[in-house]
Amino acid sequence: MTSVIVLYTCVDSPPGRTVQMALEYLKVPYTVKDVNFDVGEHFSEEFLKMYPQGEIPVLDDNGLIIGESVAIIQYLAEKYGKDETFYPKDDLRIRSVIHHRLAFYLSTYYRRVHDYMILPMDYAGYERTDEKLAKTNHALKVFNEFLHRDGTSYVAGATLTIADLPFVMGTVALKAMDFDFNLFPHVTHWFEMFQRNHSDLWTVAAEGLKGLTYYNKNPRDLTSLKHWYHITKKN
Amino acid sequence: MTSVIVLYTCVDSPPGRTVQMALEYLKVPYTVKDVNFDVGEHFSEEFLKMYPQGEIPVLDDNGLIIGESVAIIQYLAEKYGKDETFYPKDDLRIRSVIHHRLAFYLSTYYRRVHDYMILPMDYAGYERTDEKLAKTNHALKVFNEFLHRDGTSYVAGATLTIADLPFVMGTVALKAMDFDFNLFPHVTHWFEMFQRNHSDLWTVAAEGLKGLTYYNKNPRDLTSLKHWYHITKKN
Repeated sequence: MTSVIVLYTCVDSPPGRTVQMALEYLKVPYTVKDVNFDVGEHFSEEFLKMYPQGEIPVLDDNGLIIGESVAIIQYLAEKYGKDETFYPKDDLRIRSVIHHRLAFYLSTYYRRVHDYMILPMDYAGYERTDEKLAKTNHALKVFNEFLHRDGTSYVAGATLTIADLPFVMGTVALKAMDFDFNLFPHVTHWFEMFQRNHSDLWTVAAEGLKGLTYYNKNPRDLTSLKHWYHITKKN
Repeated sequence: MTSVIVLYTCVDSPPGRTVQMALEYLKVPYTVKDVNFDVGEHFSEEFLKMYPQGEIPVLDDNGLIIGESVAIIQYLAEKYGKDETFYPKDDLRIRSVIHHRLAFYLSTYYRRVHDYMILPMDYAGYERTDEKLAKTNHALKVFNEFLHRDGTSYVAGATLTIADLPFVMGTVALKAMDFDFNLFPHVTHWFEMFQRNHSDLWTVAAEGLKGLTYYNKNPRDLTSLKHWYHITKKN
């Protein structure tokens, strides 16, 4: 069977791996198109014609083009979900928790991870400052508190939902730089439980961890990448 | 009739006004509890017990507590929506566009507005730099391109959806500081159309514009606000 779902992504992209975990969970066949990030293929005329945001991941489901990992996993779960737990359709209370966690992930959790971990890894002019560390620790403190208060195993309740996937990859990005999680025991507990109970999904996440760990220690040569506003590193 | 829906918010909060517009559109009766931002009421023990993120807006619907404006408007539309256009239940294509725009708003649009406009207005140690301006202009360029490509009047298609509301308030925040929109004609066209066609919602947004314009020119005294990581301005 030829898959008609195509995922444009990079091996070490946390949002890309978030989508790949959703595809794996839903057992949806798909093809990966590796975007050559280092030379800015996501800024090429062809790519921008498809997706003017110029970012990955992008999903192409028979011509329906969707960007933003959080939007993609919502779409995939709605279209291909077969159970009532991964993204419940009717339970408005659980849906409100899932939607809150996804919004908190975008507004705060990954924003801090991106500022503190990702940008200084890839581009010149960004440093891992104490201020950015404090903000990242604060996001972790809030996430830790949500996990604690709810007293549930997963991000949005008693079972795995779409909301766990981005938090796994945001947390993986911090693991790739040996971040100190000592103050956030509930985050550690949840993360280790995920690794144990979802080894198929963890295999996908672990590939991202490997890539991020490598690039964090061995910065890419992005001198051919003409970024819109980031200064590409001179190696 | 005593309303059992309570919205914790501040008069000039763009995300708070986003939720108020949704409540107005859905004709849901509600009570506002003004959070005294200037003295950090959102960091009080009582508030944090309710909502550990320590941010506004927060919705209390009969004891169901929801934060993050994007999650709140999804919940309100799912629970109280009476038409099939504001947040369609079954059309996965339109839903994917709505969810993409909401994610883009959080990951990019409001992130840039927050960094460039909001933080320098409220706290010391933040400046309106050329770098932040360039990133804000880029977010506007992408938003402008989405409005242009789709050839539709609204953010996610031919009719008003929940996705319009946060973009209205993110754009209002820039209007409050006389931002130059000349390069983004489709944004201007959409914004003016919204003002014309939804005067009831615009009334709600305009109160936010008034507050933001005032505070942008007359910085608040936040010296009693013990913020977790921002430096509060000394006036």
